[in-house]
Amino acid sequence: MTSAKRPIVTLTTDFGAGSPYVAAIKAAVLRQCPDAVLVDIAHTVPAFNLRAAAFMLWAGTRHFGPAVHLAVVDPGVGTERRALAVQLGESYFVAPDNGLLTMVLAESRPLVPTSVVLKRPEDASATFEGRDVFAPAAGALAAGHRLREMGEEAHGLARLRDSGPAVLWVDNFGNLVTSLRPPVMGVKVGPVTVARGVRTYGEARRGDLFFYTGSMGLVEIGVREGRADVLLQAGPGTAVAAV
Amino acid sequence: MTSAKRPIVTLTTDFGAGSPYVAAIKAAVLRQCPDAVLVDIAHTVPAFNLRAAAFMLWAGTRHFGPAVHLAVVDPGVGTERRALAVQLGESYFVAPDNGLLTMVLAESRPLVPTSVVLKRPEDASATFEGRDVFAPAAGALAAGHRLREMGEEAHGLARLRDSGPAVLWVDNFGNLVTSLRPPVMGVKVGPVTVARGVRTYGEARRGDLFFYTGSMGLVEIGVREGRADVLLQAGPGTAVAAV
Amino acid sequence: MTSAKRPIVTLTTDFGAGSPYVAAIKAAVLRQCPDAVLVDIAHTVPAFNLRAAAFMLWAGTRHFGPAVHLAVVDPGVGTERRALAVQLGESYFVAPDNGLLTMVLAESRPLVPTSVVLKRPEDASATFEGRDVFAPAAGALAAGHRLREMGEEAHGLARLRDSGPAVLWVDNFGNLVTSLRPPVMGVKVGPVTVARGVRTYGEARRGDLFFYTGSMGLVEIGVREGRADVLLQAGPGTAVAAV
Repeated sequence: MTSAKRPIVTLTTDFGAGSPYVAAIKAAVLRQCPDAVLVDIAHTVPAFNLRAAAFMLWAGTRHFGPAVHLAVVDPGVGTERRALAVQLGESYFVAPDNGLLTMVLAESRPLVPTSVVLKRPEDASATFEGRDVFAPAAGALAAGHRLREMGEEAHGLARLRDSGPAVLWVDNFGNLVTSLRPPVMGVKVGPVTVARGVRTYGEARRGDLFFYTGSMGLVEIGVREGRADVLLQAGPGTAVAAV
Repeated sequence: MTSAKRPIVTLTTDFGAGSPYVAAIKAAVLRQCPDAVLVDIAHTVPAFNLRAAAFMLWAGTRHFGPAVHLAVVDPGVGTERRALAVQLGESYFVAPDNGLLTMVLAESRPLVPTSVVLKRPEDASATFEGRDVFAPAAGALAAGHRLREMGEEAHGLARLRDSGPAVLWVDNFGNLVTSLRPPVMGVKVGPVTVARGVRTYGEARRGDLFFYTGSMGLVEIGVREGRADVLLQAGPGTAVAAV
Repeated sequence: MTSAKRPIVTLTTDFGAGSPYVAAIKAAVLRQCPDAVLVDIAHTVPAFNLRAAAFMLWAGTRHFGPAVHLAVVDPGVGTERRALAVQLGESYFVAPDNGLLTMVLAESRPLVPTSVVLKRPEDASATFEGRDVFAPAAGALAAGHRLREMGEEAHGLARLRDSGPAVLWVDNFGNLVTSLRPPVMGVKVGPVTVARGVRTYGEARRGDLFFYTGSMGLVEIGVREGRADVLLQAGPGTAVAAV
């Protein structure tokens, strides 16, 4: 990050909107790197939901150029799980070793990650490592510190179990973002098969149910001027199948 | 924007709080203009609600000095509606041509807008023009590109139909912001006539219902230590009349 | 703030997420200080709730280095309550004189505050002093103006009445942050006495109810993989007692 004048640090947590915990990690980043440009990805990830967080971290960070991505969704805080900093190309991810990076790592292939187990500051609390371990490390990387200075090399990063094709996320318009890759001939969601594929919403008529390749490169399901999540009674985790 | 050291780019969308779509458009702006100061106006505009969005865009941006205002509330994405960049004085608005700019244009008179239809990047997706068309254009304007480079001149911008005096927005305290201009002698809301006018909340007593000139220069209706929206069963779109 | 290249201005309000009022105060700060780094603490403080706001302001700002902290939760706007700017060490707080600073002042001892009553700009509105009085003052302090230039010295700042030990806040995970200081032998919440103390969540088993010293240095009550607020039917204001 040394060449960038104003390094970008993104934040993804399950702390909730308007939480003083978010303010605390921003303060900790800015103390290490006053020039950081902070960009909130989301703080509304459902509490302790690693699968939702892994999706959000990937989807929210994939369009940035070189940046430091701080992610704190950490049901295991205060246990022995490792604290990681991971380099992928010109970007860094700082997160607990609990599977949060699953989608980022899968989607970044063939990039090979370099990882370290973060040294724990002596005065770090046992209850808020986001503030005391992860945010200072993200700030230090943004300020130009080298990954190798920050801890011992890490091997065997944790990954979430692959639970098969499913809805990953529902957007604000009720569209279902699935884990399926195009091309598909149709998508089965519960008892319903969505058989019609379109290239854009504009091809469909009001009330039509259809699938399409969404902006993340994944198969999505939508209803023109309606909500697919309501129509199909589907949400994050709902199993889907390509037909 | 060339003279400003750190150009301001504001964002108004209906993507929802904590959406990766918001992160995507911020990344796209920062790629074009790493120095941009990003200011969120709102991402909680009700989905596809152009009237609410037109109000929010005007109300949220009116106090900024020179800035680029990016607004993406776009029920017509993937159809033939035009993508616009509009210059008003020293500021720019980048938005779909669907009426989003109605209040901004009405309130900026006698300023004359200069508008272009944005060229569409060849690799732009059909489903997320916010990321692929609007945000890069906003970033380019913030970085000092000239409006005329960005597309052909546009004529006949879309406006929302005037549906008569109404509640435009309800604030977090239950106050009704109406489209009425002062002075009025009273305001009719459904069967109730609000006859008492005050200059400040401090003139009223607990539970009093009154009208006043609000901070946007419009007639508002409030209840001291209470909620006018609840008392009057009113919300955005409720018709009002000056008496 | 003169030595800092990019002064930090934090914002704490009850305007609600995605309110144009938040945009208005940011615009007012940036007009006075274009270099300001704006950090949202929270805009979701319950409307007019000074006790919740006083907690949020303290909890959200305590980890920052030198900064200007703007807080607008102002049930008395338009009345005779004073508008304040208060210096505490190298930081400033700009807020109405209604008790908002109670926790900040209590927790900053033995620092002695220096305070002024803000001069009121002649064209300030009677309904939105956040935009017209407080934000311009915060921006001016961030831009390097001196406190003494901004008004007459203030004495006798308002404080909230001490209502005894209570739950101050419930975090996104259902943990109860109390006003109690460690060490305690246990905590009484309604009819329940939480007798088990732990150092970290990792020491507890699923479903266990326990107390611990939280990240703010206060006694907190949690349930491993559960919600203490739901289990104990407790929330902000619920009385607690050390046992």
